[in-house]
Amino acid sequence: MAQMKPRTLSGFMELLPAPQQQMERIMEILRQTYSRYGFTPLDTPAIESAEVLLAKGGGETEKQIYRFQKGDSDLALRFDLTVPLAKYVALHYGELTFPFRRYQIGKVYRGERAQRGRFREFYQADIDIIGDGQLSILNEAEIPAIIYETFSRLGLKRFQIRVNNRKILNGFYAMQGLSEQSGDIMRTVDKLDKIGPDKVRTLLTEDVGLTAEQANEILKFMAIDGDVLAALGQYRGRNEIFDTGLDELAAVVENLSNFGVPTENFAVDLTIARGLDYYTGTVYETMLLDHPEIGSVCSGGRYDNLAGYYIDKPLPGVGISIGLTRLFYVLGEQGMLNPALPTAPADALILPMTEDLGPAIRLATALRAGGIRTQLYTEAKKFKAKMSYADKLGIPYVLFLGEDEIAQGKCSVKDLRTGVQETVSPEEAAEKIAAGIAALNEGPVIVE
Amino acid sequence: MAQMKPRTLSGFMELLPAPQQQMERIMEILRQTYSRYGFTPLDTPAIESAEVLLAKGGGETEKQIYRFQKGDSDLALRFDLTVPLAKYVALHYGELTFPFRRYQIGKVYRGERAQRGRFREFYQADIDIIGDGQLSILNEAEIPAIIYETFSRLGLKRFQIRVNNRKILNGFYAMQGLSEQSGDIMRTVDKLDKIGPDKVRTLLTEDVGLTAEQANEILKFMAIDGDVLAALGQYRGRNEIFDTGLDELAAVVENLSNFGVPTENFAVDLTIARGLDYYTGTVYETMLLDHPEIGSVCSGGRYDNLAGYYIDKPLPGVGISIGLTRLFYVLGEQGMLNPALPTAPADALILPMTEDLGPAIRLATALRAGGIRTQLYTEAKKFKAKMSYADKLGIPYVLFLGEDEIAQGKCSVKDLRTGVQETVSPEEAAEKIAAGIAALNEGPVIVE
Repeated sequence: MAQMKPRTLSGFMELLPAPQQQMERIMEILRQTYSRYGFTPLDTPAIESAEVLLAKGGGETEKQIYRFQKGDSDLALRFDLTVPLAKYVALHYGELTFPFRRYQIGKVYRGERAQRGRFREFYQADIDIIGDGQLSILNEAEIPAIIYETFSRLGLKRFQIRVNNRKILNGFYAMQGLSEQSGDIMRTVDKLDKIGPDKVRTLLTEDVGLTAEQANEILKFMAIDGDVLAALGQYRGRNEIFDTGLDELAAVVENLSNFGVPTENFAVDLTIARGLDYYTGTVYETMLLDHPEIGSVCSGGRYDNLAGYYIDKPLPGVGISIGLTRLFYVLGEQGMLNPALPTAPADALILPMTEDLGPAIRLATALRAGGIRTQLYTEAKKFKAKMSYADKLGIPYVLFLGEDEIAQGKCSVKDLRTGVQETVSPEEAAEKIAAGIAALNEGPVIVE
Repeated sequence: MAQMKPRTLSGFMELLPAPQQQMERIMEILRQTYSRYGFTPLDTPAIESAEVLLAKGGGETEKQIYRFQKGDSDLALRFDLTVPLAKYVALHYGELTFPFRRYQIGKVYRGERAQRGRFREFYQADIDIIGDGQLSILNEAEIPAIIYETFSRLGLKRFQIRVNNRKILNGFYAMQGLSEQSGDIMRTVDKLDKIGPDKVRTLLTEDVGLTAEQANEILKFMAIDGDVLAALGQYRGRNEIFDTGLDELAAVVENLSNFGVPTENFAVDLTIARGLDYYTGTVYETMLLDHPEIGSVCSGGRYDNLAGYYIDKPLPGVGISIGLTRLFYVLGEQGMLNPALPTAPADALILPMTEDLGPAIRLATALRAGGIRTQLYTEAKKFKAKMSYADKLGIPYVLFLGEDEIAQGKCSVKDLRTGVQETVSPEEAAEKIAAGIAALNEGPVIVE
C-alpha cells in the first residue's frame, strides 16, 4: 500500500523525458562551444565548508544559502560557481597553468522565495579566464565571440550582446566630481529602460542630490548612441581611468569582426553597470530582442581580484554566466523549444513478430553497433499497443521482423511520420534510419 | 589580504583539469552507450523532502543521510538515484510511457566515515527499465549486453559479468526447508570468496545452526560450475520458484550471443545474492578480473516493486548502477587511465608574432569554425614562456603567425610531440590538426 504522496519540492525543476532531451541538447551545445574556445571542463563539490563559501560574506547570499550541520561540520550548498572557482584556483594555484580557462555547468542552490519561474536549485553555465597577476584585454574582446557563437549554435538570431566598461563609467563620474555618489547614480541609471529619462532625472536630483546640470550631463552621456567610440572620444584627456576604459572598449569593438561577431548582434550600452564593486572593466549583458522582459540571458565582466579572500595573489579574470534553468524555463514558456527535434528515447523500435527472438535481438545489436538508438519491444501486448508505444514516445522508425522478413534476411522499416513502409536489408535499414535521424536533428534547438 | 585558508571537504572529489577531462570522456561514453539502448536521460533534484526520501526508512541510510531544515521544510540530499526514480515514476505515472527506460548520471550524498577511496559526494550512473504491471524477461537478458558494451567502449577487456537469479536461490533454500534462514545463509555464503568453503561451512553450522548435511548441500550447490544450466536442471521439478528462476536464467544465458556478449565476459555465479529483500529475479555483478579487490564495478538486478511506498501500482523493473566516482578513483590509483589521450584544454595554441592581432584572431575564428579547440595566447610574455604554456598544458599544436606567414596567407604549425614545423595554409593547418587530434583520441580511456 502506498504510504506517502510523492512530490517534488517547489522551486526545483524536474523535467519530463521529452523536455529533458531538449535540455541535454542545450548542455551539449554549451560544452562543445566552450571547448572550442579552449575552456576546460571543471566539476567542484556542491557542498563546501560554510566558512569557505561565506568568506566574502554579506547580504542576500547569506540569507538564501542552504547551510546545515553534519556531525561537527558547518556545511553549505554552493550558491554560485564563482566562489567555488575562487577556492579552486587558490587551493590548486601551484598546479594550474595561467591564464586558466575553465567552464563549469553545474547546479547551485538559493533558498529564494518560491515564485513562478524562480528556482531554488538551478544550473549555471559559467566560463572564466583567470590570469596570474595580469590578463590581456584580448580575453575581454573574445567574450562577445563566445556569447555570439553559443547563442547562434542554439539557433537564435535576434539577440544583442551589450557591452560597457566600468572604467568609462568610473572615469566619467570622477570627471563630474561624483565618484562618491557613483554607486547611487549607477543604481538609478539602471532604471532608465524601465522608467525613462524624466523619472531618472527626478530621482537623480531629489534622491541622489545632484544638481539639475549634473543630472542632465549624466543623461546626455547615457543617451550617446550611433558611433559611441567617436562620441566618447570627446571626453578624452580629462580622466586617466576614463581613457584606459575607452582604450579597452575600443579593443573590444575593433576586434569584433575578426572574431566573427556581426555588428547587428552587438552594441555598446553605456547604461550597463552590473553590480557595484566586483567588476572593474568590460561588462556584458545579452538580450533576446523579442523578449526584453526576460532580462539579460548571459552576463558577466572583468574583475581584478578573483580570490583575494583565499590567497595573497592578484588573480584578475573575466567571465560570463548563463542562468540555464531559468533560460530553459522561459524558452519553454515562450514556445521557443523547437518541437520538430526528436525527443524520443530511441530512433528505432523493433517489433519481433516470431516466437524466436534471436533474429530481432541480432537486428537490435547490429543497429546499435551502427550508432542507432534502438529499443526492442518484447512485452506481451497486442500489435496496436506496441504501435501506440512508438507513437506516444515519438519514435520515428518501427521495424517489423516476421517469418517472411527473416527468411529473406530482411526487415520491414516503417517511417511513422510518412507512413511509408519498406522491406530492406539490415544494412539498408541502418543507413536509412541514420540518414532520417540526421535530417530530423538538423534544426536548431531554439526557434524564434 | 587572504583571510581564509581555501580547502575542499574531505570525502569530496575535486579533480585537476587533466583528470577531469578523462572523467568527462567516461561520462560521455556512458551517455552514448545508454542512449544506444534506448534509455532517455533524466535529471532529478539533489534535494528532496526528507519524508519522501525516507519513506522506505531504515538502517544505514538514515544515519548517513544529509538532512537539514530550511525554513519550515525538512529536507535531505538524495543518497541514491533509485528512490528519486521511484518518486519520479509515481509522481509522473500518468505522463510516462511504459516500459520506461531511463538513465541518470548524478551526484548522490552519504555522510560515511571518511576514508581513502570512500566518497561522501559521488556520481552514480544508473539505468533502469520500469514496467507497468509486468516486464518481459528479455529486459533482464539485455542488461549484460549493456554492461558489456559500456565497459568495452571504455577500453576494458578483462572483465566478467556475473549473473544469478534470486528465484533460483529462494527456490533452492525452500527445497532444503531453509526459507526462514535464507537471509542468514546468503549473508554467510557471500563470504565464500573471502574466507573459503571450510570457514563458510563452520559458520553455517555454528552460527546459522544448520546441520552438517545442509551446509554440505549448500556448498555443493554453490560450487556448481561448468555447464551451470545443465547442472541446475537436475534440481528441476522440486520447487516452482526454482523452476521459474531457472527458466529466466536460461533466457538470459541463451540470448547472450545474439546480444553480442562473448562467453569469456560472462559467467553464472550462484554465490551472488545482492541484498536481501529488494531484488527478486536476475542479479548482476561485474568484476575486473585483474582487480578483484575492487569488488563489483557495476551491479544491480530485477525487482518487483519499485515505488510501492508512493503509488498503489505494481511497477517491476530491472536496473544496474556504476559507482562512477569510486571507479574513477580506483582506475586512477591503478594507473589505468590512458595517459596517451590528450587532456589539454585546447588542440591548438596560436601565438601571434605581430602587433596587429587581426590575422591571429581571424585564424583562431577559422580553426574554431572547423571544430578545432583553439586558444589564442595574447599575454605579454617572452616567447619561451609562451611555449612553456603549451608544454605544461600538453597542447599538441602551436601555430605561429609572423609577418612572413601573414604576407603569404599562411601559418606555421608545430607539432609539439614530433617537433616538426611546417608552413601551410590555414585550411591545411585545420585539416592537419583535425587529423592529428583524431588519431590522438583513438585510444580507449581505460587501459589494462
